[in-house]
Amino acid sequence: MERYTLSVLVENQAGVLSRVVGLFSRRGFNIHSLSVGTTQDDSVSRITIEVNGDAQTVEQVSKQLSKIVEVIKIKTLRNYEIVKRGLALVKVKVSPKTRSEVIEITTVFRANIVDISPNTLTVEITGHDRKIGAFIDLVEPYGIEEISCTGMTALERGANTLKIDK
Amino acid sequence: MERYTLSVLVENQAGVLSRVVGLFSRRGFNIHSLSVGTTQDDSVSRITIEVNGDAQTVEQVSKQLSKIVEVIKIKTLRNYEIVKRGLALVKVKVSPKTRSEVIEITTVFRANIVDISPNTLTVEITGHDRKIGAFIDLVEPYGIEEISCTGMTALERGANTLKIDK
Repeated sequence: MERYTLSVLVENQAGVLSRVVGLFSRRGFNIHSLSVGTTQDDSVSRITIEVNGDAQTVEQVSKQLSKIVEVIKIKTLRNYEIVKRGLALVKVKVSPKTRSEVIEITTVFRANIVDISPNTLTVEITGHDRKIGAFIDLVEPYGIEEISCTGMTALERGANTLKIDK
Repeated sequence: MERYTLSVLVENQAGVLSRVVGLFSRRGFNIHSLSVGTTQDDSVSRITIEVNGDAQTVEQVSKQLSKIVEVIKIKTLRNYEIVKRGLALVKVKVSPKTRSEVIEITTVFRANIVDISPNTLTVEITGHDRKIGAFIDLVEPYGIEEISCTGMTALERGANTLKIDK
């Protein structure tokens, strides 16, 4: 089982996301992460999906996705040819004693403190799964109050694009 | 019509996302943005959904969501009590002449350059919709090759949390 990243351009309409996600669930695919956002064209959204599977099944799903009317374009992205990034908000328990230690870790990871209260620090960290995971592992001993992550989003490196031919 | 942010804790199982998203689409709600990610507990995922609607319909949807078996907890977050962040990857067309101008804009926004090729620069920018939008407006004249956004993710400010009572 490998991890695949699918980038799907769809028409920005109610119900499209539901059809795309439904196709994965009917095939028993557990979506590892999902991001939906607008593109430079307001009528088009881009869905980035990370799934675990083998090459053959991923290709099958990709083919079936392309049959959905509102799907404009699909591309399976290979890890070595993309920039992949996600964002996590992590609320860490702190005391006046441990606060500076958590701030130090945050600085090393070039993460940002976005909220502070007497007993908590909320940190915004971006990067690849592994970087976010490493940060979480390091602050875990202080106590994690809650975590909220976006899915991963990705673009091909260099000048290659997934654009609509007009 | 106002924008609401729903934070939903669900069991991490195939099909849950499909049921949650399906509920919105059946009611004709167009989801503005959606993020799914893991939490500190591997068996639990957090879905953050931004929708436009009025208070009453959002409350109705929230009630119906809570009837889905795999939904553990839901909270409608008010904009003034949360930290909300998303991430965008923006690939901008550059020439040797314009490259430094785009790099300058990137620096002002405290965004990061994550890829560079002879004719493109790919920038990672995080923040609120408005900040990301302002950056895109500024680099638009250079030519945008493609944009890929995560949905918005959010946490309550201070020590308040959406946690599972165990």
